[in-house]
Amino acid sequence: MSADPLPAGGRIACRIEYNGSGYNGWQIQPHPGSRTVQQELESALGSVADCSLRVHCAGRTDTGVHGHCQIIHFDAPAARSPKAWVVGTNASLPEDVRVHWAVPVPDTFHARFSALSRRYRYLIANTPVRPPLFCKQLTWHRFPLDAELMHAEAQCLPGEQDFSAFRAASCQSSTPMRNVYAVEVFRQGELVVVDIQANAFLHHMVRNIVGSLIAVGAGRQPAGWTAAVLRGRDRTLAADTAPPHGLYLADVAYPGDYRLPPTPYGPLFLRARRH
Amino acid sequence: MSADPLPAGGRIACRIEYNGSGYNGWQIQPHPGSRTVQQELESALGSVADCSLRVHCAGRTDTGVHGHCQIIHFDAPAARSPKAWVVGTNASLPEDVRVHWAVPVPDTFHARFSALSRRYRYLIANTPVRPPLFCKQLTWHRFPLDAELMHAEAQCLPGEQDFSAFRAASCQSSTPMRNVYAVEVFRQGELVVVDIQANAFLHHMVRNIVGSLIAVGAGRQPAGWTAAVLRGRDRTLAADTAPPHGLYLADVAYPGDYRLPPTPYGPLFLRARRH
Repeated sequence: MSADPLPAGGRIACRIEYNGSGYNGWQIQPHPGSRTVQQELESALGSVADCSLRVHCAGRTDTGVHGHCQIIHFDAPAARSPKAWVVGTNASLPEDVRVHWAVPVPDTFHARFSALSRRYRYLIANTPVRPPLFCKQLTWHRFPLDAELMHAEAQCLPGEQDFSAFRAASCQSSTPMRNVYAVEVFRQGELVVVDIQANAFLHHMVRNIVGSLIAVGAGRQPAGWTAAVLRGRDRTLAADTAPPHGLYLADVAYPGDYRLPPTPYGPLFLRARRH
Repeated sequence: MSADPLPAGGRIACRIEYNGSGYNGWQIQPHPGSRTVQQELESALGSVADCSLRVHCAGRTDTGVHGHCQIIHFDAPAARSPKAWVVGTNASLPEDVRVHWAVPVPDTFHARFSALSRRYRYLIANTPVRPPLFCKQLTWHRFPLDAELMHAEAQCLPGEQDFSAFRAASCQSSTPMRNVYAVEVFRQGELVVVDIQANAFLHHMVRNIVGSLIAVGAGRQPAGWTAAVLRGRDRTLAADTAPPHGLYLADVAYPGDYRLPPTPYGPLFLRARRH
């Protein structure tokens, strides 16, 4: 990690990892007393810069949702080295938020608008008893889930489609259209993993999709139900929204020209893919 | 899980799992305001029994140490079914403590004195940046650890020996002799796992051994140093005690006659063994 300073005014991108269970989501809230990841990060980066700054992220996560790979950018108000931006910022951050790297990027880079796709991972502990060791980092489902059936069920999702059926009432997007690139559901021991990649997501879209896949995987709804819900474009027909603490922003893809460091698969020490 | 009541007065054994990061260890403390796992458990079991009761455990864990498999026993003050002892107790427990099973055992069974051996697992995240997602469930070591060297180094430990070198000043045992049955150190991706089984352990013995193995694995001490420290029988010669939050009581073995349910390997979703 270089100790040579990057110029003031230059744009810098970072990978952020955080445990969301102690936070009211990513985004700074207007009401005082709300603890947010963005606020902690701006405060810690600001202490390195010795003045205030503003960060922009790839995807705002909700209360309780975790970031394995959140990408941010900011314009450096002072000349500091990549090492200072990482080590100095980490020294000021609470232990549940960390900066992995800081690299210079051209002014054309924007953490949100330059992103080609986001990948989310949802982890479900499928055990008779709720796992106390990771109670804030996994969602628990007590009854046996058929992960193969959930995978088959999810194959109606890829493609550019109207995802109104899985969109929160609070969603502020101007369009319900999103392009899902891939969905995989697989079992690894007692964990069921849902992996979903899209150009972008509507508010609560991953958690609403997971809620519906669980309803089918647990046998409460028949096979093919997810496709019918999707076609219906009516949120009231879908299953309950799955809880936030099983959800991780796992990766964000950008054009290769920006040469951002690759993200190791995660979270946890899970295998990368279905097979 | 049976809903038929077990008789009042009968002895019951349970497997308990807990995240120790919110607790002042296992054992009930004399000073009020100390939150302990034993206290939470006795209170929850007591609410099922409708009267107070006392539990006995296989191994008292320190502040911040986790239990993947803690075994307890108690004498039932009221007739309740195994299902009531599990489901009813879990309904009263905080989310970071759970009962996995409850089975009747003869009066000859004692969670501590009947145990043939204990197995502890110590997890070290060997990453450039401290892992924020599991900051209370892993110990972090920033510099590369040679897990193969640590494994070789640890092979001086098995056998019945005087472990004074790895014994806390606070240890109340009448003897420093313990019989270590096996030690394995292996790497799984970015995690280094230390697995150690013995008839019993002195206070801080696992954390002191891990501290010394880390000193060798990181190159701060030469190969063979652990054996020299062990032979010296002087705690002041050993390395610093490793932190508590990477330590898990992983399993307890009892004579097969008691027919206790087997414990799945854990914690996390880690492979069982070195190879």
